[in-house]
Amino acid sequence: MAGQTEPISRMVNQLSRLPGIGQKTAQRLAYHIISLPEEQVKELAVAIFNGKTQTRLCDVCGNYTDQDKCAVCRDDDRHGGELCVVRDPRDVAAIERVRDYHGLYHVLHGAISPMDGVGPDDIRIRELLTRLGSGEITEVILATNPDIEGEATAAYISRLIKPMGIKVTRIAHGVPVGGDLEYTDEVTLSRAIEGRREM
Amino acid sequence: MAGQTEPISRMVNQLSRLPGIGQKTAQRLAYHIISLPEEQVKELAVAIFNGKTQTRLCDVCGNYTDQDKCAVCRDDDRHGGELCVVRDPRDVAAIERVRDYHGLYHVLHGAISPMDGVGPDDIRIRELLTRLGSGEITEVILATNPDIEGEATAAYISRLIKPMGIKVTRIAHGVPVGGDLEYTDEVTLSRAIEGRREM
Repeated sequence: MAGQTEPISRMVNQLSRLPGIGQKTAQRLAYHIISLPEEQVKELAVAIFNGKTQTRLCDVCGNYTDQDKCAVCRDDDRHGGELCVVRDPRDVAAIERVRDYHGLYHVLHGAISPMDGVGPDDIRIRELLTRLGSGEITEVILATNPDIEGEATAAYISRLIKPMGIKVTRIAHGVPVGGDLEYTDEVTLSRAIEGRREM
Repeated sequence: MAGQTEPISRMVNQLSRLPGIGQKTAQRLAYHIISLPEEQVKELAVAIFNGKTQTRLCDVCGNYTDQDKCAVCRDDDRHGGELCVVRDPRDVAAIERVRDYHGLYHVLHGAISPMDGVGPDDIRIRELLTRLGSGEITEVILATNPDIEGEATAAYISRLIKPMGIKVTRIAHGVPVGGDLEYTDEVTLSRAIEGRREM
């Protein structure tokens, strides 16, 4: 753009590559960043770089950690018999925010999606089976996303695990709390009726 | 947050300090950044840091530049007789995007605001007067924001400059193109009628 220097353009371009940040937002952010004291901008840049480089996958569950094992796997108070299988580390963060679940996790880092060429061997299913082989886990909760890939992944894992005599559950599908029946899509509504419980 | 490491928390906190980015968006951005290849994250961090440190103020007009003089001031094709006074470098970028204005700029880096303790000496008005003293400029276009501070700043500068025999103009206020009369606020509508032109 006319009147915009190379360093500013480069910052705008980099910021606009982030999800949900368009060219205009990137421009607004860039001008804000330039108006900050240099020390603060350094903190931001370092926090981004260190946040990436100091984050690795937990040796046990695949969650993000800055040590060998993640905070959940290091916590002796967690119930070692329950294993919640999720797609991404951000799903672990979401469930941890609820503070209702006290078991362990297994992060697949993906979902089976033949359309995208992602097969069972491309996600951490082998590692899951190895963990289950130790015999400590009595229930596997499949908390993959309620979309086509998540359902396919859950179905695939379920078929693998059930013969091992381990209890396999799937998180409930239904009408979101605070939601509106009228605006709930048909598949969700059908699942909500199917999964009805006695009161 | 439980299960979130120090490096990730620090990145989320830094990102959430940016304008328009809340805790949830910052979290989403952080997890996205962690999922990128290290090289790409480095590019982002470096672009942010360099965008700040390699940006300085133009010796002449106060616009952002990576050299002594900004691209506009270096361009001999610009009309040296017209000077557009704006609050921020981002206003220069906005006007340059239109490609309609071919004069020079003067960036005040703020607006007079007694409420916030910003007086005439706190913004680049002295530098403006020095530039006008050279005698080359024949018209000053006051393009400060159409808000209280911007109007006060424009009025203040106008009173200073008029006695120097320089033409002083203010950008037009009115109904935005594509806007709706019904939803235009009263002050804007009043200004639109006041500033009406013969067709």
